Amino acid sequence: MTTTRDRLLEAAADLLYREGVNVGVDALCKAAGVSKRSMYLLFEDKDALIAASLDRSGPRYTAALLPPGGGTPRERVLHVFRRVQEVTADPEHRGCPLVATAVELKDPLHPASAVARRHKATMTEFFRAEAAAAGVPDPDLLATQLTFVFDGATTWSVVRAEPLADQAVTTAATLLDAAGLR
Amino acid sequence: MTTTRDRLLEAAADLLYREGVNVGVDALCKAAGVSKRSMYLLFEDKDALIAASLDRSGPRYTAALLPPGGGTPRERVLHVFRRVQEVTADPEHRGCPLVATAVELKDPLHPASAVARRHKATMTEFFRAEAAAAGVPDPDLLATQLTFVFDGATTWSVVRAEPLADQAVTTAATLLDAAGLR
Repeated sequence: MTTTRDRLLEAAADLLYREGVNVGVDALCKAAGVSKRSMYLLFEDKDALIAASLDRSGPRYTAALLPPGGGTPRERVLHVFRRVQEVTADPEHRGCPLVATAVELKDPLHPASAVARRHKATMTEFFRAEAAAAGVPDPDLLATQLTFVFDGATTWSVVRAEPLADQAVTTAATLLDAAGLR
Repeated sequence: MTTTRDRLLEAAADLLYREGVNVGVDALCKAAGVSKRSMYLLFEDKDALIAASLDRSGPRYTAALLPPGGGTPRERVLHVFRRVQEVTADPEHRGCPLVATAVELKDPLHPASAVARRHKATMTEFFRAEAAAAGVPDPDLLATQLTFVFDGATTWSVVRAEPLADQAVTTAATLLDAAGLR
């Protein structure tokens, strides 16, 4: 059964992704079919709703790009870049929601900025673990480099309003080669 | 002499960078010390003001990172990454204003999105020209890769709310090495 809280979080995730953190409380409640009174019984304020909503939608974006079990570390890392190239082909794609929220809020102390920071570490940790499993000398550095490419590539697609071709995979592969992860 | 138009564009650039594209017309006019009537005589609407303001502040952000004349292509490219690492140490840094505006607007057809797209090409073209001058086989690919690192690194700093150390230079150097640009 879908609770009022679920409905609000789903509607907020959708609307925040499409319109940004400045969408109004009225619009959020209307999209969820929930009264403002109900919303304020569940969340202290709009900031708390944004944070809770991103806490749900952010990990979902990341999870959809991660590989299933199996495969070599190289295959598993390149899977992520192939997938992110694919998702940028969706005309509704607006980049990584965690990045978008942090960029929009411009306030490192906002509760949703903390959520973005926390969940953004998931992808970097995935890269680090694969690099470590492959015996790369500096897994932290490679993980940071791959994260730069991941976020730079999605940003490129948002700024240029066009899908990625194979540049993200090619760039990641170059960095894997350079780190000796073959 | 500072014109009303100049005052508005400067105030808007500052406020948009600090608060984002959803800042109100009242706040923009107040910050510039300009009446709303004057604003609407100069700009058709807020969207036109945002676009004109970014058309001024965006190139300034890029220009501050580009190297002075002289130096090898490798030195000139790495200068940009050293400089961007430095600017992220400013607590007021909120990333590249061109990227921020595109991410916030979520509308490729907005006039300011077109401005972001156009000026964002300046840095990529700088990388391409240096790569071509160095005789790299595929200057376009290297330019794209360096742009990913540039935008990924500034994004990393915004999301984590911390300055870059030497990761941007290190990653760019790895890609230059891989392309044979020594």
